[in-house]
Amino acid sequence: MNQDHVLGIDFGGTKIALAVAHVDKVDQPVGWVRLPTLASQGARQVVKRCFAAASDLVNGVDGLRAIGVSTFGVVRGDRVRLAPAVPGWEGLELPRLLHQEFRGTPVAIDNDVKAAASAELRWGALRGVSTGLYLNLGTGLASAMIVNGRVVSGAHGASGEIGYLLRQPGELGFSAGHAPLEEFISGRALGDRGTALLGRPVTASELFARGGDERVEGLLNQAIGALAMAVANLCVMIDPERVVVGGGMMGAARRIVPTLTAAVTAAVPFPPEIVAARFVDDAPLYGALALAASASGQD
Amino acid sequence: MNQDHVLGIDFGGTKIALAVAHVDKVDQPVGWVRLPTLASQGARQVVKRCFAAASDLVNGVDGLRAIGVSTFGVVRGDRVRLAPAVPGWEGLELPRLLHQEFRGTPVAIDNDVKAAASAELRWGALRGVSTGLYLNLGTGLASAMIVNGRVVSGAHGASGEIGYLLRQPGELGFSAGHAPLEEFISGRALGDRGTALLGRPVTASELFARGGDERVEGLLNQAIGALAMAVANLCVMIDPERVVVGGGMMGAARRIVPTLTAAVTAAVPFPPEIVAARFVDDAPLYGALALAASASGQD
Repeated sequence: MNQDHVLGIDFGGTKIALAVAHVDKVDQPVGWVRLPTLASQGARQVVKRCFAAASDLVNGVDGLRAIGVSTFGVVRGDRVRLAPAVPGWEGLELPRLLHQEFRGTPVAIDNDVKAAASAELRWGALRGVSTGLYLNLGTGLASAMIVNGRVVSGAHGASGEIGYLLRQPGELGFSAGHAPLEEFISGRALGDRGTALLGRPVTASELFARGGDERVEGLLNQAIGALAMAVANLCVMIDPERVVVGGGMMGAARRIVPTLTAAVTAAVPFPPEIVAARFVDDAPLYGALALAASASGQD
Repeated sequence: MNQDHVLGIDFGGTKIALAVAHVDKVDQPVGWVRLPTLASQGARQVVKRCFAAASDLVNGVDGLRAIGVSTFGVVRGDRVRLAPAVPGWEGLELPRLLHQEFRGTPVAIDNDVKAAASAELRWGALRGVSTGLYLNLGTGLASAMIVNGRVVSGAHGASGEIGYLLRQPGELGFSAGHAPLEEFISGRALGDRGTALLGRPVTASELFARGGDERVEGLLNQAIGALAMAVANLCVMIDPERVVVGGGMMGAARRIVPTLTAAVTAAVPFPPEIVAARFVDDAPLYGALALAASASGQD
């Protein structure tokens, strides 16, 4: 066996994505699979169907040198935490299951947003950056901090989980089941808040596409203002050279990025540049491939 | 020359402190000097008097192996920045002046709060900590982030300058000459705000010592609440295993630490412990000695 390919797996709340690539061109996969997660049916079937798909996908290649895996939640030691999206995922021993399935092949695993940051570091907008910040504005809200050219894990794998940032003193937070910033500004939050405001189902991207409606403008301005303050404060703390923004809400980049830039320019002693991510669709899958590249010894 | 001693120099806004120690016991200095900074008389005389004192101090020892220097402001490459306390310090080429004075001897330089964090890492409450946060609650307000057991500099040496954190969206910040959080909760700010409230000169420690006065209690509760939210948010971002708090306001530790602990416990997914620093008085001078120990090859 030549072991000249790597496998990337992304476990997402709605879909599982897999890709296989040659070790010399890890960012240009030669094979793909996408499956629905079927979250309500629980964690076990997700893993089982994923492994079956992986087996089919790598059937044609000459052996695997390494595997990279990204997952929603937070990877802490031998388990996944902070992962309510799929019943049974919280506390799942994903590393052990992966090692059992792919005996002898190195496996690297991280959460989806940190993995996406790894892809930006290796091939994208964070290339060459020593101190930086990756921001994921998607259905949820999270980030990854870069120090010395590496993604920071934190003491429990939970660094960068900015959905839990407080917006005001005394606000109910994590211990009360809340994610204050994520409940105010994220794709899901904007959809929910817009739906309540307009009295009919509406998504975040429909809100951004709308315009002219004062109530919607007010909601968006307030939400983006809260995000801009949070990003400015993160930059005050970290002093990054660059902030890279990805995630589904970047469809509204023209609305969001200038507000972030203005806030950061006003508040931060040495303002970083704010740029769009290279990987938007499938960022965590490219992240999984970047982790696989690291695990295969490419550093 | 045996070169078996190191020199630590701390440039502060009100005093310059120097200490000399044997390389085997760097945290137990054998000689000390303290001089007033005489800030209004400018940077040149500060450096000149400091070098004269250093010369006297090391006169009796067998040669210097390394020098560590801490200074207010932020050290960026060859200059000190963000240092308005002493006229002429902003933009001062301190590294060049030090290299000229101590030809051939290794010199390490960092700002006072990052240096103090280095002392805690080497000998104090951050020993053995990989991901951590050092908080200085003094006349001013600043912090240092620890990643992989090292103090993080940031892209421009300005990581951890949390005095510039915004308390609310749209607030005037650094570019308008403000340091929003430091102007609300720091030794200087509490003194100023207490003085305005009571109509007579009062210091932060007098405010903490008072008690019973509803207006003073309100001011302190509001200020500590803002600080607690900021610390909780820093912990959400960094995911530290421990937060170490130092600085002159720690005279009121019994009032401050429980509020910080409660906020962090409520808001952070994996709450860190919050403990008092080992070094309170002279923390930046011990920091300078810790930098000297690093520069002498002790790592």
